Amino acid sequence: MSTPTGDIGLIGLAVMGQNLILNMNDKGFTVVAYNRTTSKVDDFLANEAKGTNVQGAHSIQELCAKLKRPRKIILLVKAGPAVDSFIQQLEPYLEKGDIVIDGGNSHYPDSIRRTQELEAKGLLFVGSGVSGGEEGARHGPSLMPGGSPAAWPAIKEIFQKTAAQVNGEPCCDWVGETGSGHYVKMVHNGIEYGDMQLIAEAYDILKRGLGISESEIADIFTTWNKGVLDSFLIEITADILKFNDDDGVPLVTKILDKAGQKGTGKWTAIAALDAGTAVTLIGEAVFARCLSAIKDERVRASKVINGPQKEAFHGDKKQFIDDLEQALYASKIISYTQGFMLMRETAKEVGNLLVTKMNWNLNYAGIASMWRGGCIIKSVFLGDITAAYQKNKDLESLLFDDFFNKAVHTAQPGWRRMIAQAVLWGIPTPAFSTALAFFDGYRSEIVPANLLQAQRDYFGAHTFRVQPGMENPRLPKDKDIHINWTGRGGNVSASSYSA
Amino acid sequence: MSTPTGDIGLIGLAVMGQNLILNMNDKGFTVVAYNRTTSKVDDFLANEAKGTNVQGAHSIQELCAKLKRPRKIILLVKAGPAVDSFIQQLEPYLEKGDIVIDGGNSHYPDSIRRTQELEAKGLLFVGSGVSGGEEGARHGPSLMPGGSPAAWPAIKEIFQKTAAQVNGEPCCDWVGETGSGHYVKMVHNGIEYGDMQLIAEAYDILKRGLGISESEIADIFTTWNKGVLDSFLIEITADILKFNDDDGVPLVTKILDKAGQKGTGKWTAIAALDAGTAVTLIGEAVFARCLSAIKDERVRASKVINGPQKEAFHGDKKQFIDDLEQALYASKIISYTQGFMLMRETAKEVGNLLVTKMNWNLNYAGIASMWRGGCIIKSVFLGDITAAYQKNKDLESLLFDDFFNKAVHTAQPGWRRMIAQAVLWGIPTPAFSTALAFFDGYRSEIVPANLLQAQRDYFGAHTFRVQPGMENPRLPKDKDIHINWTGRGGNVSASSYSA
Repeated sequence: MSTPTGDIGLIGLAVMGQNLILNMNDKGFTVVAYNRTTSKVDDFLANEAKGTNVQGAHSIQELCAKLKRPRKIILLVKAGPAVDSFIQQLEPYLEKGDIVIDGGNSHYPDSIRRTQELEAKGLLFVGSGVSGGEEGARHGPSLMPGGSPAAWPAIKEIFQKTAAQVNGEPCCDWVGETGSGHYVKMVHNGIEYGDMQLIAEAYDILKRGLGISESEIADIFTTWNKGVLDSFLIEITADILKFNDDDGVPLVTKILDKAGQKGTGKWTAIAALDAGTAVTLIGEAVFARCLSAIKDERVRASKVINGPQKEAFHGDKKQFIDDLEQALYASKIISYTQGFMLMRETAKEVGNLLVTKMNWNLNYAGIASMWRGGCIIKSVFLGDITAAYQKNKDLESLLFDDFFNKAVHTAQPGWRRMIAQAVLWGIPTPAFSTALAFFDGYRSEIVPANLLQAQRDYFGAHTFRVQPGMENPRLPKDKDIHINWTGRGGNVSASSYSA
Repeated sequence: MSTPTGDIGLIGLAVMGQNLILNMNDKGFTVVAYNRTTSKVDDFLANEAKGTNVQGAHSIQELCAKLKRPRKIILLVKAGPAVDSFIQQLEPYLEKGDIVIDGGNSHYPDSIRRTQELEAKGLLFVGSGVSGGEEGARHGPSLMPGGSPAAWPAIKEIFQKTAAQVNGEPCCDWVGETGSGHYVKMVHNGIEYGDMQLIAEAYDILKRGLGISESEIADIFTTWNKGVLDSFLIEITADILKFNDDDGVPLVTKILDKAGQKGTGKWTAIAALDAGTAVTLIGEAVFARCLSAIKDERVRASKVINGPQKEAFHGDKKQFIDDLEQALYASKIISYTQGFMLMRETAKEVGNLLVTKMNWNLNYAGIASMWRGGCIIKSVFLGDITAAYQKNKDLESLLFDDFFNKAVHTAQPGWRRMIAQAVLWGIPTPAFSTALAFFDGYRSEIVPANLLQAQRDYFGAHTFRVQPGMENPRLPKDKDIHINWTGRGGNVSASSYSA
């Protein structure tokens, strides 16, 4: 048998897999391609991969035999049982230290389990988020690998050269342990939902509030794309708004206003609820899509529920549009603050779906830098987040970073004016409003949850704790206190439990 | 063996179980009590149940032998494996048509499964939400039974006499099939989270916004409790705000502002996400508790993030307080609209946790009437909801009912003024704001999801549909359409898929 020459193997020759192979080949790596239906291997070698260094394999055994050690094998197959099945088929041909990489859209609990199972057998596992679709796979995706840390030195060069590059830096870095790669990809998708919803609300306010035409709105987005909002989504929004049907009518106005979903936004919102983290903006973005979906009911409602009398806007239009830009920027800062807060809490939390503690050491600067290019949420903004975490890798919150702290302070007056106006106009701003509510709650030393605790103790004896600095013999520190609220004497009769 | 005389059996003699037994005994039913640790049975008979008609059983066999047929046995044990274990122990002693009732805090998917398992064996199952805590169990709880419909005639009299009574009507009616009883109890708890959050926000606005003292705020709540907001939670809020510590300081101000959670609000929000229904108010209420919980981080944030300059309120205070009352009322209408929308969608949906379609025939008027008394959310308001569904059992949305439609129209101007003011003040109103955003989205014939669909088609070829009335040969009706957005000619090149 000849000496193996393959740098990396790839299983699954759908378009994503083929494109990733060709991309890795371009970067100088020798890829061995395998597919369950082996005729696809021959077709690929004879067509798309003709003239490249790509090698084919017609069995799992041949695939493994052609790879240099430690073997590195990427699975790009349908998430779910297919991944487990291929892992099982690979195991007999793998040796200690070999690396199985799942590049599909797996849900992170599966990746946590697979890391544990493979590590118990002396193998290494990587679950990698891959973003950027077919185009990204071919010319430079955003890659978010996490799993067995010992795998990273062995795959780093291939991954970082294959990924998108921004200012000479790769959109790929090590994320963290076990399922963190797929977790971070999920949060990325949730943030994408939030970004899109904010843009949609801004469009609605310009159109229904200010009464501006699509082509003028396109110009506004083009201008915004030169400032702090510079990003792929703002850019394509301008393109879309400029796109007319043959009759000269903006095509976007002919598109049915029912948004589809593929579930990852929902996963993120559920993960946030499970982690007990207030990721409100993604939550509202997911719910806004749900509300859009009940079009027929909305049409019926529109006929029997009136909004406020629409009055012409008498203010300074230019100022209002600047306010809107600031509102979009500030809300986006809140959304990313919440997303990073979710990752931070999950990294330390006892997993809800799992018995184990996550105990991830996440590379926050790396995560932000991976998202700067190769994916839907790519933006200049993510460079600023990268810088914030590079300055302080233990940054508690983006809002504590000088750059973003200054940015929200600057944006605040316009952000408030814009929402107050939208509320009076009757134009819905669920994402803008929840961002501001979070901001105002977050910067509140005291929120009215003291009243909630009193209610819970009143009707269910759920107990409460005393506010720091307010302790007294009847309200002892660090004790669960219950009061007989209906004893009207005005005297507190506290019973403290050590429970 | 003597003829059995027991009307109903109850397993689990913790306080809830004991109180429910004593309550049923008061209503003239003969209850047979059993507990795994049988000494508890003897203690109960010798003490709390002394002089009553309650009978004891020292084995499952004895319990079943003492019950008239069809046997009715309520389990009041810890949710989870204990319920399955007791069902298994009961089965050998049960006969066709006997009824097992789970009155614990089970999650509805378990109740769906148990209904199916017991019905397959010729037995009947009821999963019943029980609300009102220990006091309610003793003197009249809200009971929400669902499961095998054939069980209802056999348990109806016992359940309806044991439940709380409002205006001579029982707070108990048949909910629907399989797990619907526990599902409805879960939604009830979610709605409770929402009601409490709205009250907390109103308190915050009165205190931080208008600068009113706790005792004056108590008076405002007392006044509100005589109007459309008349309810248990408004009443106890007034009590709480009037309750002073020995030094004359309102006790509520000494309570730590970190809200606890027992998980049912979170379950409701997750169920809403799974059902694709925009239950935004409960979602925000759950997230507000999460934000309250990170007290230390909020304290740090409060030192480095400033809100707007606080200006004295120069408006009409009385008018503003009326606006706030209207905002609270309208937001509550939205929250219940969303809750009933969730039940409606779930009743027909293909369950996410399950393979089966729910296919529930829910008794909406009954559900509202069950909540009128015996539980935390009891209110006059629920009588109005009962009336709405009695008038039209297929009512699509509370907002289509004349009474509530008029109510939101009346409330609307004040609701908007109040939120706009809170936004400018910098006082967080996540629940009020999301209610208004939902209202404005719901009554919008067109929401900006058309732009989302364009974006999704632009970057991921996810396709879109055409708006009704906008069809043309290039934008055909009922087809998934994809556009080459970057082809800048201005001409649409549509490819339609039948996929």
